[in-house]
Amino acid sequence: MNDAHPHYQALLLQLHTLDDLHKSAAVLYWDRETCMPVQGNAGRTQQLTTLNQLAHEMVTSTRMEDLLAAAEQEQASAAPDSDAACLLRHVRRQFEEERRFPAEFVRWRSEVTGAAGAAWADARERNDFAAFQPHLERTVEIAQLSAEVLGYTADKYDALLNQYERGMKTAAVREIFATVKRESVPLIQAISERLSTIDDGILYQDFAIDAQRAFCRHAAESVGYDFSRGHLAEVQHPFSTSFGIDDVRITTRYQPDFATSALFATLHECGHALYEQGIAPALARTPLAQGTSSGIHESQSRLFENQVGRSLGYWQRHFATLQAHFPAQFGGVSVTQFHRAINKVQPSLIRVEADELTYNMHIILRFELEQALVSGDLVVRDLPQAWRDGMQDLLGITPPDDAQGVLQDVHWSQAAFGYFPTYTLGNLYAAMFMDSAQRQDAGIAEELARGDVTRLLAWLRQHIHQHGSRFDAPELCRRATGQPLTAEPFLRYVRAKFGALYDLDV
Amino acid sequence: MNDAHPHYQALLLQLHTLDDLHKSAAVLYWDRETCMPVQGNAGRTQQLTTLNQLAHEMVTSTRMEDLLAAAEQEQASAAPDSDAACLLRHVRRQFEEERRFPAEFVRWRSEVTGAAGAAWADARERNDFAAFQPHLERTVEIAQLSAEVLGYTADKYDALLNQYERGMKTAAVREIFATVKRESVPLIQAISERLSTIDDGILYQDFAIDAQRAFCRHAAESVGYDFSRGHLAEVQHPFSTSFGIDDVRITTRYQPDFATSALFATLHECGHALYEQGIAPALARTPLAQGTSSGIHESQSRLFENQVGRSLGYWQRHFATLQAHFPAQFGGVSVTQFHRAINKVQPSLIRVEADELTYNMHIILRFELEQALVSGDLVVRDLPQAWRDGMQDLLGITPPDDAQGVLQDVHWSQAAFGYFPTYTLGNLYAAMFMDSAQRQDAGIAEELARGDVTRLLAWLRQHIHQHGSRFDAPELCRRATGQPLTAEPFLRYVRAKFGALYDLDV
Repeated sequence: MNDAHPHYQALLLQLHTLDDLHKSAAVLYWDRETCMPVQGNAGRTQQLTTLNQLAHEMVTSTRMEDLLAAAEQEQASAAPDSDAACLLRHVRRQFEEERRFPAEFVRWRSEVTGAAGAAWADARERNDFAAFQPHLERTVEIAQLSAEVLGYTADKYDALLNQYERGMKTAAVREIFATVKRESVPLIQAISERLSTIDDGILYQDFAIDAQRAFCRHAAESVGYDFSRGHLAEVQHPFSTSFGIDDVRITTRYQPDFATSALFATLHECGHALYEQGIAPALARTPLAQGTSSGIHESQSRLFENQVGRSLGYWQRHFATLQAHFPAQFGGVSVTQFHRAINKVQPSLIRVEADELTYNMHIILRFELEQALVSGDLVVRDLPQAWRDGMQDLLGITPPDDAQGVLQDVHWSQAAFGYFPTYTLGNLYAAMFMDSAQRQDAGIAEELARGDVTRLLAWLRQHIHQHGSRFDAPELCRRATGQPLTAEPFLRYVRAKFGALYDLDV
Repeated sequence: MNDAHPHYQALLLQLHTLDDLHKSAAVLYWDRETCMPVQGNAGRTQQLTTLNQLAHEMVTSTRMEDLLAAAEQEQASAAPDSDAACLLRHVRRQFEEERRFPAEFVRWRSEVTGAAGAAWADARERNDFAAFQPHLERTVEIAQLSAEVLGYTADKYDALLNQYERGMKTAAVREIFATVKRESVPLIQAISERLSTIDDGILYQDFAIDAQRAFCRHAAESVGYDFSRGHLAEVQHPFSTSFGIDDVRITTRYQPDFATSALFATLHECGHALYEQGIAPALARTPLAQGTSSGIHESQSRLFENQVGRSLGYWQRHFATLQAHFPAQFGGVSVTQFHRAINKVQPSLIRVEADELTYNMHIILRFELEQALVSGDLVVRDLPQAWRDGMQDLLGITPPDDAQGVLQDVHWSQAAFGYFPTYTLGNLYAAMFMDSAQRQDAGIAEELARGDVTRLLAWLRQHIHQHGSRFDAPELCRRATGQPLTAEPFLRYVRAKFGALYDLDV
């Protein structure tokens, strides 16, 4: 960025300070999830509220507005693709949105979500939806008010979706999800009739946590996650977070009787982290130094979790290492047997454990419930029953309790309505990127068949990661693949993969 | 605190925000020491610098000055011992000191110490003083400039000492340290002639880290550390930290061949943490909600590490549990044999591993070197040799390398000159408090003889902990013991204890 632009430089300094505040808050959030004692939450919520408020004050200050206007004038002739132009567009849009929220609202939101996060964890543990209900009513209210503040034309939900997936419309998501559902349901149906084809019993044994830890670390390194710029911790609800390009953290959750849960959570979070570790250093400490949308972010996590992590090629390279970590459990298992087990398709209760086909049904359920909550068609009190009805309708199963149903995800406690659909968008983007990468560089498929992700990662670095938030998702997708978002590559991928595994005629 | 004082209430709100900033910085520091990846330090230093700078701006703002002045006027008739009067005195003094530092200095200090901390850890690891030297030269410069900014009359060092031990003078420390040295040296000498009386070989065996972890947790609970408001982590250089009364963390370092190192570090940090966990909730989120001086803080850590943790009574209660954790190592050892081993007196290289008698010689060395560095009589280049000479002079031994000599402590990398003497002051205060506690409540000694700290902790809570920073150290000491600081109780304690252990005629 250019020294001949004093206002722009001064703006950058302010953005760096703002970024430090956001990253500090991220560290406090990380600490809350990874090691804060149970009684620390009230104080932590106050600290986070103060940091959020100081950041909000900075964004909405006249000093920042003046600096931004002066910098825009100074850079008026910058090339539209330049870092400066991308940054100024991004900042203008982001600040104008944030300025619409009164300071009292920002404080209230931080206090409500701070308390709701702890209440959710406790309610899930005790399977007590009623204890969480008043908190959820407030976070729904936050979402409804946010939608009004942000504004919308067609769907109220558009305003929320736009926070995570800029430029995406609810109507477009509905249409593409309808396609995914229409094509997936008969496939799931056909597989359901041949469930016994695959036995995944070998995945459910006793697995020493220490050995799981060691193998998860191996897996993270196997896909290129850089531990000199990262850290793997243990939490209840896995997530990844970035405190800057050189400190991008991942988390996982170990289950003593189901090792692949922690493993695929690790690979999933690695995908997110590879994105953040791959952003161009020139963008550091600016709002562009983060993934551009939740859908694109999710494309990276789902790509490494599924398209890489559940591929035969990956396991042909790494299964011997897994066997060495768990000789009693996997010593007598073949790699194809293991590969089939980790790809078993079967309707199940927990989203994060779902196979690649039924996963999207979990998302479609949440997408429909969120729209109803936000519009007011559904009240929180009736949500558990609506969840049970939806699971029965979409997957033919009913959760035995709320802990395995409506209470399973953290998102709603954080008022993150509009986020869930981006998981399925991520699946679709992931398939598009894999498809394009392999078309553009035939060596990628050859390497992947040997479990080597080097060339794939290089392609992602070049076409996705390095850009950070320079381009919105639709533009990034067009540049990387030459196409707008489409479900076709995903549907081709699942038909080919599961058709072969289940010997179906699709 | 009182609703009838609107200015005072408004000041409190500002102090809460300021406290949130300080506590956020403390979380970032904790994370840096406990899990930050090596490449994360540059970004972390920037984040800490921003938080420090925002706090400094808040303290030095005219808004804060106006609020403070208005609150002082409003509370002019408050009782001198009231929370409000204590807080306003404390804040007035603290803010006036902080206002003397220009913002550029605050930023520079944060940047220098951020880089120096990482450089020190690396230099110590590689035993490379030359690599650390330029960083240390800058932190010495920070100390020298700070002394000039803060001002002093007799000794330049007074200004630095005053940051950690308000009201204490260098001349007074010199005098009391001379007494400690004069009385300790012949005792150490006499013991040196009977070194073979105690064999501590049993402490140096292989100890599984998992079992060490479990026992350290037991030890922390045994002295009343509350894990629902705390967390024990692993670091290179143990410390404790508080993010508020309900979240006070401790750390330790495990050595596979020397279990009591982690154990006594844990008990030491527990002492600090018990102080912070015991502060009155009414003081929360104000500058009074922290220990009043480093010396008083250290009195609590040394009290639990030594007067409790190295007592026969403690081990009569807990040795069986230790044996259960390490049956191969301690199964055949008697409690008196163990108690003697952990109290072996022998000149050694590492301060934090030193026995109760030679420990103060380590402090006297650092106190003398710091004064010489700050006055300019000693330059950093000559420090390693001065260290070796001092160790030879005070303890008759010479470190074989700088890692076990001048590079062993983190403090100087953080520009914390003036801190070291408070360790020995802590030893003296600890002995005074134990002495007074047992005189005031005969039940305390009875309980301690059974390894039970309940009444002792209650006495400390009442006379020390709850007050936070309401009173300066000399006033707190006078209130708790009826006396000013004196070395006599400490000297009586070591003469009695080590006289008995070594069968000396003292």
